Amino acid sequence: MLDFWFDFGSNYSYLSTMRIEQEAARRGIGIRWQPFLLGPIFRSFGWTTSPFVLQKEKGDYMWKDMVRQCRKYDLPWTQPTQFPRAAVLPLRIALVGASQPWIGAFCRRTMAMNFADDRDIDSPQAMHEVLAALGLPAHRIIEEAASDANKAALRRQTETAAEKGIFGAPTFFAGGEMFWGNDRLDDALDFIAGSDHRAPGLA
Amino acid sequence: MLDFWFDFGSNYSYLSTMRIEQEAARRGIGIRWQPFLLGPIFRSFGWTTSPFVLQKEKGDYMWKDMVRQCRKYDLPWTQPTQFPRAAVLPLRIALVGASQPWIGAFCRRTMAMNFADDRDIDSPQAMHEVLAALGLPAHRIIEEAASDANKAALRRQTETAAEKGIFGAPTFFAGGEMFWGNDRLDDALDFIAGSDHRAPGLA
Repeated sequence: MLDFWFDFGSNYSYLSTMRIEQEAARRGIGIRWQPFLLGPIFRSFGWTTSPFVLQKEKGDYMWKDMVRQCRKYDLPWTQPTQFPRAAVLPLRIALVGASQPWIGAFCRRTMAMNFADDRDIDSPQAMHEVLAALGLPAHRIIEEAASDANKAALRRQTETAAEKGIFGAPTFFAGGEMFWGNDRLDDALDFIAGSDHRAPGLA
Repeated sequence: MLDFWFDFGSNYSYLSTMRIEQEAARRGIGIRWQPFLLGPIFRSFGWTTSPFVLQKEKGDYMWKDMVRQCRKYDLPWTQPTQFPRAAVLPLRIALVGASQPWIGAFCRRTMAMNFADDRDIDSPQAMHEVLAALGLPAHRIIEEAASDANKAALRRQTETAAEKGIFGAPTFFAGGEMFWGNDRLDDALDFIAGSDHRAPGLA
């Protein structure tokens, strides 16, 4: 079982979201979807926004890297006119649906709305569109996502991320082993596949 | 031709240094070795040292990642007791030898001294040992490396790195295309191999 920690505003989370189900299924590995808010993590480091915004050189490079990475993975790509996009409601919905059969498709559609269609995702209208396109009871799901209990659950999820030492997204946990970045998705899956479910660190 | 910008103090430069000649040769691609000082680049961002030191969470993760990466590439590894190690003299020597047939072997031995043997590298004694082991006239090379002209050349090299938008190491340039990090070495080489020496950006 691979834990996948992600935020819909994170561009490298986009790459992993689009390919994780297929890559995991090829190896017979299940995914635990772990949506969390990257913003509070960044703020805990004293950063007001994404390091790709704060550090211009790295940001300029990242956009070129994204063009090449999307070409490599055969994914659609439009550089978002707003970055990083707020994603509180989508993340709340992902938490509601984390164990539902529609979670993968929901995450891919929401990511594509941000990084392929360059559209805002953090509104009930946008989320209604995504959920309805999947044939889901959008109104009920959005209501549940916006409940006080679920809001608190997303805050706890983000606290858990911080406690685990997560400092960016995507981050994967294979047993106790942490892997950071889309570039490590295959390593994380191979780690599980090779470990034969032995204790972490013994692989 | 692939330009390889590196600093001997940089742990991810270690991974690339150890494998770049073999990977490039497999594709019939030559390497231009571009030693530079990463420290002044970091200081230009307002950082006093490596981000792996400044940001504890990322640093803790990086050391675990290095263990796994070295296992993946079958490279020796010892976490250096001093990080990042100063490497001014080794970089000056690498600049002297950048076009010499011994540059690859010199860089690998110097990197191994830092990241496999956990030894300081920034002394005439250490460099004498490395150069002499390669059967080279160590005294003459160290003298040339420490000349005012070569000191100025390394400063210019570092200024050029900054002008090119380099913000970390290793960084590769394939024509005008920049690739950052050991994780992009293969992409950079494939970019050259696939571009048939056409103008950058047309591949």
